Amino acid sequence: MSAPGFDGLAIGPADVEAAAARLDGVAHRTPVLTSRTADERTGAQLFFKCENLQRIGAFKFRGAYNALARLPDAQRRAGVIAFSSGNHAQAIALSARLLGMPSVVVMPADAPALKIAATRGYGAEVVLYDRYTEDREAIGARIARERGMTLVPPYDHPDVMAGQGTSVLELIDQVGPLDALVVCLGGGGLLSGCAVAAHHRAPGVRVFGVEPAAGNDVQQSLRSGRRVRIDVPHTIADGAQTQQVGALTFPVIQRLVEDVVTVDDVQLARTMRFFAERMKLVVEPTGCLAAAALLEGVLPLPGLRVGIIVSGGNIALERYAELLVRDP
Amino acid sequence: MSAPGFDGLAIGPADVEAAAARLDGVAHRTPVLTSRTADERTGAQLFFKCENLQRIGAFKFRGAYNALARLPDAQRRAGVIAFSSGNHAQAIALSARLLGMPSVVVMPADAPALKIAATRGYGAEVVLYDRYTEDREAIGARIARERGMTLVPPYDHPDVMAGQGTSVLELIDQVGPLDALVVCLGGGGLLSGCAVAAHHRAPGVRVFGVEPAAGNDVQQSLRSGRRVRIDVPHTIADGAQTQQVGALTFPVIQRLVEDVVTVDDVQLARTMRFFAERMKLVVEPTGCLAAAALLEGVLPLPGLRVGIIVSGGNIALERYAELLVRDP
Repeated sequence: MSAPGFDGLAIGPADVEAAAARLDGVAHRTPVLTSRTADERTGAQLFFKCENLQRIGAFKFRGAYNALARLPDAQRRAGVIAFSSGNHAQAIALSARLLGMPSVVVMPADAPALKIAATRGYGAEVVLYDRYTEDREAIGARIARERGMTLVPPYDHPDVMAGQGTSVLELIDQVGPLDALVVCLGGGGLLSGCAVAAHHRAPGVRVFGVEPAAGNDVQQSLRSGRRVRIDVPHTIADGAQTQQVGALTFPVIQRLVEDVVTVDDVQLARTMRFFAERMKLVVEPTGCLAAAALLEGVLPLPGLRVGIIVSGGNIALERYAELLVRDP
Repeated sequence: MSAPGFDGLAIGPADVEAAAARLDGVAHRTPVLTSRTADERTGAQLFFKCENLQRIGAFKFRGAYNALARLPDAQRRAGVIAFSSGNHAQAIALSARLLGMPSVVVMPADAPALKIAATRGYGAEVVLYDRYTEDREAIGARIARERGMTLVPPYDHPDVMAGQGTSVLELIDQVGPLDALVVCLGGGGLLSGCAVAAHHRAPGVRVFGVEPAAGNDVQQSLRSGRRVRIDVPHTIADGAQTQQVGALTFPVIQRLVEDVVTVDDVQLARTMRFFAERMKLVVEPTGCLAAAALLEGVLPLPGLRVGIIVSGGNIALERYAELLVRDP
């Protein structure tokens, strides 16, 4: 589990490599796109890893499938439960279906209707809760106990973290070495997995996390050295509305991530329009976080070869159409 | 120039292969995406060749660059002129810039502002005209004569046709043999080039064209055996508002295309939403033609492996946002 430089962390390079083998032929090998306009604007060479084109429309499929595929038979039969603001829900639902397992997903009642419908469409039983007054972790834990189901958390789990990191193994296979990697950040599952993969395959790489300005708990946590807990942040980046970084992901971020920067909702909306207009991609607000840091000049990395994770594309069309023409 | 089955046509397989060599490392090798939902809905196995992710956001770059790259030095110095409803304009402008040539583009005054701006952005001089009262061909011919520039038509030119066909060589390299190929259709440059490439690489393949219901001149032409000329059709598929199929493209279509079908604007808008919601792709109305024929049940091809050319993604954001939430 450990390798030099990764001692004491929840995952190491071998875990990400093993996850990649498990996902081979199951997850999409998503394309990497480039944009001359983006390069001209930033002075960097940007490689956009399009996880919005992943199964279920987001990177979350990687971690969920990796976690479920590792469960022994008895646990598979009893089924799986997850709580999620959206993409993890669909990821668990689809992974469970592919592996022939029952699944329950606990979702906030105000999650995008598209995400709730898609989760049900994959065959999961959906349990709704109020994200401002109820505790999804408590609800999930209760159902898990009552039905004997295995709870797979959305980010703070070694198999989930390792699965997410496979996106960066692919990215480096596809484009060669990177000088820097920029990743969006909610609970830190994607960022931690990607940081391990990046430092493994591209030693000396600089890794950055990007979170919404309204919910900069990880930035605060890095500065204070402890996991700061915040109120549910109000931001259009609904996939990054976490209140606290994970206990397992935080040490990885502390060791392997150079810095965490923030962007606001208007910057996210402009970046969403850039993706639509210039790159012909539908990207959800959370998926715009990493690109926004570069395109909006928050994180200048001139002259570098920079990997950008475009994390997902799940957003209700009405909301998307609105953000294309009006600032939030 | 000719090969068995392609005698007497403006282009043969060797022309498309030569174009592919010219475009190697210059055009993007665009990704091929699949959709489980699309496959379930159609009963076919669909392979979407994403030319909306091509340089300038459309397949047109292939034909334009191929045509310009073949010009001798004296003609390169004098420069190139083109008339186009949009994507060909940008394609000529960018290709000219890459080859160090001056360029003039004659565009309809009501073309999407994004396309006009992008064409100027690539360094072309833009001359606007009224597409309902003026003749773009006459304007183009006059400027070409006055300035000694070479006129590159948007579709009815062997090098343009051959260049467009390279998308299908790539597609078959990427996914293996196809039973059928479905391609959008305005003047027939893309369809004819793709038909030659498809019959060359996948003998026995069934090739279909799709045009807007409001402008079914090619369907009429195939039935009557002569190139029918129609008024400028009113359709949201602005890239397929041609009045008459090409003199060079039509014989290719007559010989190598099994049938031409039509879809209406509401079907195009629904397909555009499908691309956004399910595949996270921004596709312009014209680019939705081929997919709409399948997804809307106009062209049932159950059990077949079907290539779909997604031709482009250039559409003004305001218009796009409108079509995402409201039928045209």
